Amino acid sequence: MGITGQLIKFAQAEVPEKAAAMMRLSLFDWAACGIAGAQEPEFAPFRRAQMVEEGPAHIFGGDAGGAATAALVNGTLSHALDYDDTHFAHIGHPSVAVLPTVIALAETLDIPLTDAIDAATLGVEASILTGVWLGRAHYQVGYHQTATAGAFGATVAAARILGLDKREVRHALGLCASMASGIKEQFGTMAKPLNAGLAARTGVEVALWAQAGMTAAHDGLAGELGFGATHHGEAIEVKLPRKDWQIGDISHKFHACCHGLHAMLEALANAKVEAERIGAIKIRTHPRWMSVCNNLTPKTGLEVKFSYAHTAAMTLLGHSTGTISNFSDEMARNPEVCALRDKIEVVEDDSLSETQSLVTLTLTSGEVRRLRHDLTAPMTLEARSEKLRTKVQALIGSAQAEMLWQAVIGNDLDAVTACFKGA
Amino acid sequence: MGITGQLIKFAQAEVPEKAAAMMRLSLFDWAACGIAGAQEPEFAPFRRAQMVEEGPAHIFGGDAGGAATAALVNGTLSHALDYDDTHFAHIGHPSVAVLPTVIALAETLDIPLTDAIDAATLGVEASILTGVWLGRAHYQVGYHQTATAGAFGATVAAARILGLDKREVRHALGLCASMASGIKEQFGTMAKPLNAGLAARTGVEVALWAQAGMTAAHDGLAGELGFGATHHGEAIEVKLPRKDWQIGDISHKFHACCHGLHAMLEALANAKVEAERIGAIKIRTHPRWMSVCNNLTPKTGLEVKFSYAHTAAMTLLGHSTGTISNFSDEMARNPEVCALRDKIEVVEDDSLSETQSLVTLTLTSGEVRRLRHDLTAPMTLEARSEKLRTKVQALIGSAQAEMLWQAVIGNDLDAVTACFKGA
Repeated sequence: MGITGQLIKFAQAEVPEKAAAMMRLSLFDWAACGIAGAQEPEFAPFRRAQMVEEGPAHIFGGDAGGAATAALVNGTLSHALDYDDTHFAHIGHPSVAVLPTVIALAETLDIPLTDAIDAATLGVEASILTGVWLGRAHYQVGYHQTATAGAFGATVAAARILGLDKREVRHALGLCASMASGIKEQFGTMAKPLNAGLAARTGVEVALWAQAGMTAAHDGLAGELGFGATHHGEAIEVKLPRKDWQIGDISHKFHACCHGLHAMLEALANAKVEAERIGAIKIRTHPRWMSVCNNLTPKTGLEVKFSYAHTAAMTLLGHSTGTISNFSDEMARNPEVCALRDKIEVVEDDSLSETQSLVTLTLTSGEVRRLRHDLTAPMTLEARSEKLRTKVQALIGSAQAEMLWQAVIGNDLDAVTACFKGA
Repeated sequence: MGITGQLIKFAQAEVPEKAAAMMRLSLFDWAACGIAGAQEPEFAPFRRAQMVEEGPAHIFGGDAGGAATAALVNGTLSHALDYDDTHFAHIGHPSVAVLPTVIALAETLDIPLTDAIDAATLGVEASILTGVWLGRAHYQVGYHQTATAGAFGATVAAARILGLDKREVRHALGLCASMASGIKEQFGTMAKPLNAGLAARTGVEVALWAQAGMTAAHDGLAGELGFGATHHGEAIEVKLPRKDWQIGDISHKFHACCHGLHAMLEALANAKVEAERIGAIKIRTHPRWMSVCNNLTPKTGLEVKFSYAHTAAMTLLGHSTGTISNFSDEMARNPEVCALRDKIEVVEDDSLSETQSLVTLTLTSGEVRRLRHDLTAPMTLEARSEKLRTKVQALIGSAQAEMLWQAVIGNDLDAVTACFKGA
C-alpha cells in the first residue's frame, strides 16, 4: 500500500499505551516551551496581529481564538526557543507541528485530553512515517521537514479529532499537499518557528475544509505531480508500525543550546568532581559537529550556545545548561568559567556517531576518568519524566511546572490550557 | 541585480497609465468571475466555514471578514470557473492571486481604488517577472505557477498597499518563500481554485507580519536553500520593465470553455453566414490541442467545453460560448447543433502556433471563405472593453454588469465591493 493509503488507514488506528505515554510527556514539554516562548518580546507584535477573532482555543501568553489561529500562533511560539522535542528519523521536531493542531481542535470541539493525546500520537507517528518516506534528499535540498512532513502529521491528527471518514481523510491529505511548505533558508530567523506554526494551522484547515466538502487530488502526496515528486521526495518504502512505534525514539532537549553539545553535557552530568581537582579535559565528538558548535572563545550568550568548552566548564562549575537565562553575555565573560574553559581540548573522532560523545577528565591527582554518553541510549519513562520536570521547572518556574504537570497527568485539558497564559 | 532586489525596488515603482488601464479591465473581469463563482453550490460549505470573524473586507456571495480571510475566499471563488485572465509568459492566471489581496487590504485600510489598481498592476507584473524567473522547468515538474509565482506578486502588491519600507518588503518576500505553494496534481479538483486563494491570502499575511516585525531569510526566493533552488526554479535572468509592461499581454477569456478552442471561436465570430448555407467546415489547429479539446461527439455539457466541432456549430447557430449555461447536457444533445457538427473536420497543422487557428468554410454555393485568428493579436483597450462587457453581461446579467462597470470606471471601491454580493 502506498504512503497515502497507509496514512488514511492509520488515522483510524488504535494507539498503544506506551506510545501515548511518550506523547503525554511531550505534551508537558511542548506546553512549557510554548509558555516560555510567549515571553520572547520580538514575537509580541505578530501575536497581537493574529488576535482578530474570538474563539475557544487558548493561546500561549494569554487570550484565545479560533482553532486555526491558535494552531498558527501556538506552533510558532512553542518553537521560538528551539527547545521542543526532536526525532532523528523524521529529521525534525515532531510535536511542535502536531500538538498545536490537536489542542486547538480539542478545545474547540470539547474532546477529552486522553482522546486528544491519542490523536497527537497518531499525528506524530504519521509525521515520522512521512519524513522517512520523503527521505534525506528532501531535507538536504533545503526543505524544513519539521514543517513539510509535520503538516501531513498534523492533518492525520486533525482528521482523527474530527472523526473524518476515509474519503474525507484522503481529501484532507490532498489539500495538505498544496499547503505543506517551509524551507531551511529561514534558519536563524523568526520564519523558522513560523514554519512550524504554519504546518499546525494547515492540519486544522485542511481537515475542516475536507469536512466542508472541499476536494483535492486523489493522491496529493505520492501522485505523479504530487508533493513528493515535486519536492525532491525519495519515496522510500515505509510500513505502518505494529507494536513498537517510532515515537518511542523521540529525543527531548534537556539543555538550552545546540543539539551537538547534548551528548557531551549528558556525559559530564555524571562527572561529580570539584572543578579545582581537574587538570585537563579532552572532549571527543563526531567530526560533523566541529564546524557547528566548537566556538572556543564565545563572546556572547548566543555564542555560548555553540561552544563545547564553555558549556562544559559551566556544567562542571554548577551553572545549569537547562536554564535559558544562563546563556547570557555575562556568562560568556564569567572569569571562573573562562579559566576552566582554557583547560579543555576538543577533538574530532570519527569512531563516534553523531549522537555520541566521550569525555576524558584528568584530575590533578593523576587519576583519569572516562565519561561517555549516547543520546539514543534507552531511558525509562520514569527517568525521562524526572529530567523533563527539572527542565520545565527551570523553564517556567516550579509553581507553573507543578500546575502543568498535574494538569497533564490528571487528563484535564482545561487545566492544561489554563497554564498557557504563563505566570 | 537579483530577482529579490528587483522586486523590492519594484514595489516602489511608478505605474504607467497604459498598464493600469489594462489592470482596471482585469478588475472588472475578475470581479465578475468572482460574483459568478460564488454561485457554484459545491463551494458554499467552504465559504461558510470561513465566516468566523467580522471584518471590513467584502466576500463574493455576501458577508464580509478580515483581509486574510477575504483574500482566501475571494481568490478561491473567482477561480472556481477558470474563466479569469491568463498570461503566457507567467504561465498562469495573474489577476486571481493579486486582486483578492489588494481589494481586501484596500477596503480594510480605506485606500482609494486608483491606488489599489496601481498596487495590483505592480503585483501582477511582479508575478509575471517571478514566473519568468522560475521558468518552464518549475511548471513542468508540477508546480501551479498561478499560485507559486502569484504569491510573490500578491506580496509585492500588499507591500505597496501597506507602504512597507525596503527592509520590510525583503522580509515579506522572505516569509512568502516559506508559504508559496500549490501543485498541478490538484487540477480538476476544488483544490485548483483554492491554490489561487491561498496565494492571495499569503500576500496579505506576509505583508502584515513583516510590518509586525517578523523576520525571514535575507533572500528567501533566490538564496542557496531558497524557494527557487528547492522548487526546480531555472533562475532565468529577468529585468524590470520600463515603458512596456508585460501586463499588456494579458489574455482575457471570452468563451467559457477550454482555452485551446478560443482562437477558432474568435475566427468564427466573423463568419457572418447562415448555417444552412454551409456545405463543409475544416478547422486547422496546433497539434498540441488535438489531445486536449477535440472531442468529436461530446455527450455532456462538460465534454462540450472540450470540443472544436460542437462549439464551432454552436457559434454558427448563434448559441453564445460566452454564456456558461449554454454548456449543458441539453446543448450536447441539441439536434441542430449535432447535425451541423457532422459537417466539420478538425485537422492538426504544425505551421500554426498554439494561439492560432485557421477555419475554412465551404458554402453550398461553392464559395470558400478562410477565417483566421491569433489570440496574441493586438486589441485596443476599447475593443477589449466591449468584448469584456459582453462577456460580463452573459456571466452576471446586464444590470449587475452595468453596475460593476460604472463602479470600476468611476473609481468607486465601495461600489465595486457592493457588487460582490451578486443579484
